[in-house]
Amino acid sequence: MYTSDVACEVRKKAEMAKRAARALRNLSRDTKDAALRAMAQALEDNENAILESNSIDMANGEKKGLGDALLDRLKLNHARIMAMAEGLRELANLEDPVGTVSELTRRPNGLLVGKMRVPLGVIGFVFESRPNVTADTSGLCIKSGNAIIMRGGSEAYNSNRILTKLLADAAVSCGIPQGAIQLVESTDREGVRALATSDDLIDLMIVRGGEQLVRAVSEYATVPLIKHGKGLCHVYLDKDADVAKAVEIAFNAKVDRPGVCNAMETLLVHKDIAQACLPQLVARLCESGVELVGCPRTVDLLKDHCDIKLANDSDWDAEYLALKLSIKIVDSYEEAVDHICSYGSGHTEAIVTENHSLAMQFLDDVDASVVLVNASTRFNDGFQLGLGAELGISTQKLHARGPMGLKELTCEKFVVLGQGQVREA
Amino acid sequence: MYTSDVACEVRKKAEMAKRAARALRNLSRDTKDAALRAMAQALEDNENAILESNSIDMANGEKKGLGDALLDRLKLNHARIMAMAEGLRELANLEDPVGTVSELTRRPNGLLVGKMRVPLGVIGFVFESRPNVTADTSGLCIKSGNAIIMRGGSEAYNSNRILTKLLADAAVSCGIPQGAIQLVESTDREGVRALATSDDLIDLMIVRGGEQLVRAVSEYATVPLIKHGKGLCHVYLDKDADVAKAVEIAFNAKVDRPGVCNAMETLLVHKDIAQACLPQLVARLCESGVELVGCPRTVDLLKDHCDIKLANDSDWDAEYLALKLSIKIVDSYEEAVDHICSYGSGHTEAIVTENHSLAMQFLDDVDASVVLVNASTRFNDGFQLGLGAELGISTQKLHARGPMGLKELTCEKFVVLGQGQVREA
Repeated sequence: MYTSDVACEVRKKAEMAKRAARALRNLSRDTKDAALRAMAQALEDNENAILESNSIDMANGEKKGLGDALLDRLKLNHARIMAMAEGLRELANLEDPVGTVSELTRRPNGLLVGKMRVPLGVIGFVFESRPNVTADTSGLCIKSGNAIIMRGGSEAYNSNRILTKLLADAAVSCGIPQGAIQLVESTDREGVRALATSDDLIDLMIVRGGEQLVRAVSEYATVPLIKHGKGLCHVYLDKDADVAKAVEIAFNAKVDRPGVCNAMETLLVHKDIAQACLPQLVARLCESGVELVGCPRTVDLLKDHCDIKLANDSDWDAEYLALKLSIKIVDSYEEAVDHICSYGSGHTEAIVTENHSLAMQFLDDVDASVVLVNASTRFNDGFQLGLGAELGISTQKLHARGPMGLKELTCEKFVVLGQGQVREA
Repeated sequence: MYTSDVACEVRKKAEMAKRAARALRNLSRDTKDAALRAMAQALEDNENAILESNSIDMANGEKKGLGDALLDRLKLNHARIMAMAEGLRELANLEDPVGTVSELTRRPNGLLVGKMRVPLGVIGFVFESRPNVTADTSGLCIKSGNAIIMRGGSEAYNSNRILTKLLADAAVSCGIPQGAIQLVESTDREGVRALATSDDLIDLMIVRGGEQLVRAVSEYATVPLIKHGKGLCHVYLDKDADVAKAVEIAFNAKVDRPGVCNAMETLLVHKDIAQACLPQLVARLCESGVELVGCPRTVDLLKDHCDIKLANDSDWDAEYLALKLSIKIVDSYEEAVDHICSYGSGHTEAIVTENHSLAMQFLDDVDASVVLVNASTRFNDGFQLGLGAELGISTQKLHARGPMGLKELTCEKFVVLGQGQVREA
């Protein structure tokens, strides 16, 4: 079944990871935190070697003609290495999620029943371009008691390799079992498949990457999968919105960082507030270089204020991830919610309104990983929401929904404390 | 892509279910509970029609030569119909899991961040033989605000059909949206595939059935899947076990209901207590008709007490689901835990010991959905553990581990309450 060299590499590493996971499960917080600090130190101590490896990847990337955005994501420098180290030290300061037992409930027959939080076991992690992800995810997995096998993109091969070696060696020197942090060296697609079909060894696959990659993996994966999918996020400016807040929130949601999944892609505006909000908002958006498309009413209202084109049907379905925005004027709250239910990707949805009942209604009506009232969609982020760490944003409903922190890398098993109880027929 | 008639039927039903799910999400507890009671009443009022349909299935089953066990699972009678109705009424009495918001945490910027419990949406449910499962699962889904599409086995076709119609009609008469309870009428395998690949419409697949079916579905499913897999459960009698408790627990774990997943398949016994426990235990097991195999030491100890054969390697891997038991004498606690880690299926594992520290150690060392101290493995059951209901026992770690109740049919979304906050760069 596993004939290729790549698949053999993956299977061997997964077997090592499974052995490591058994030992990791019972490590004390002290051991794990010491390892995290040693991992941070190892990155700082080896900055030159890291930068050297990274420069090979950068040179290869330039030769291959990677775009500026991609090259920027690939690049490491002093500040980024320090940020990785700092992130690991912050993880050491977080509570250990493992080992707590929720309230033990007494059953009529005297049994005490509770749930104990435990690591998942072995996590397969597929990601693209940014090599600093190796430090973040290794740290999150060690802290939560899981073994990790990473598979990065080919463009970051040399950077990922040295980072993983430094992190793994530092961890092992502090008592973390060998095999707890590993990288699949081959960047062949076959490696992803081998990971995603090793359900006898791997407990969870996390795939961060383009829609096509995620789709492909979900089709052949037998390991349970958490997807980091598309973010088609809306902001709805209700007729009872405070105009100043509405403009600030819409502007921030679009412009703060347009290339990420929690940026707004479509703005919905109640007809009664369009005149008060839109001209001043689009003036600021245009200043920031945002390209605008709109429904006929929007175009009609704004055509003298700015350069705006009529939206196509495909615009309402588009995750631009760029300085582009589609705007639609709606007749009612219900029309806005219908639009969100039809086109939203279940990622992040916001309403701006001073009407309390309607705000509460919106929380019930809209099904997304994060639903906000009077706040920017940009707050869908593990650090911003107070998780203390983030492994990505899950766009599915099972197990983890929204930003994933340490807790989402664990599960709960039932523990039952008895005094000789047997089940009566 | 969906060309067959079966696939078209499934897609059409899944689209209806998705529309229904949007309305279901916001139904009040009163509406849902009234529907559950009406569903119960409908079953009681139509007992004769149900029994008539069931008798067709039974006659077909006999013609096809189904075994007695299967025919018994297929059979409905007055008591079983009353039990279905009673189960639905009990669900009406349980708390509604939907809508609660966990403690709202204040972020430094003033945002209030919490998690709201919401239904998953649309659940695809594949099951075999027992037609009463239609009532249990429809009830659980309605109570938790989900739409359900069931696909039962061909042997129960007529029973499932009339039950689903009665349940769905009664629910709709109380304000549950059309399409909330549906059955895939075709029993072709293609129907399962169409469900499991409709990830645009279905949020969760639950598959209850044989190992082969579960394996096949996990290979092609793109919808997140919860598996109800194999239960290879152990009981370990420690050297510090109370002999009387040890014998009672081991006997109960094997004999109470040998055909189910939480029955013990292998007994591990510390060498220092083997002489005190095993002869009296096997005497009772043999009386109950249990076939015994053992390791060489066990056979040596027991060969004068009972008929016992030497275990093959495959015995330690076997889920007998029958009156058969493998017994192994171990030199130490560590050897017992190693055996469980090697052969256990992560379902249910128990230790019998009076040694408190070792009992706590066992909770940490053993990774299974339910880990018990001094209690029978038979307690791995939603009702026994106090969930109030059960949809089956998940053998995976993600989202739901162990018995699944109402809460496991929901997820949590983040809700963020602001007053105009935007994200600072």
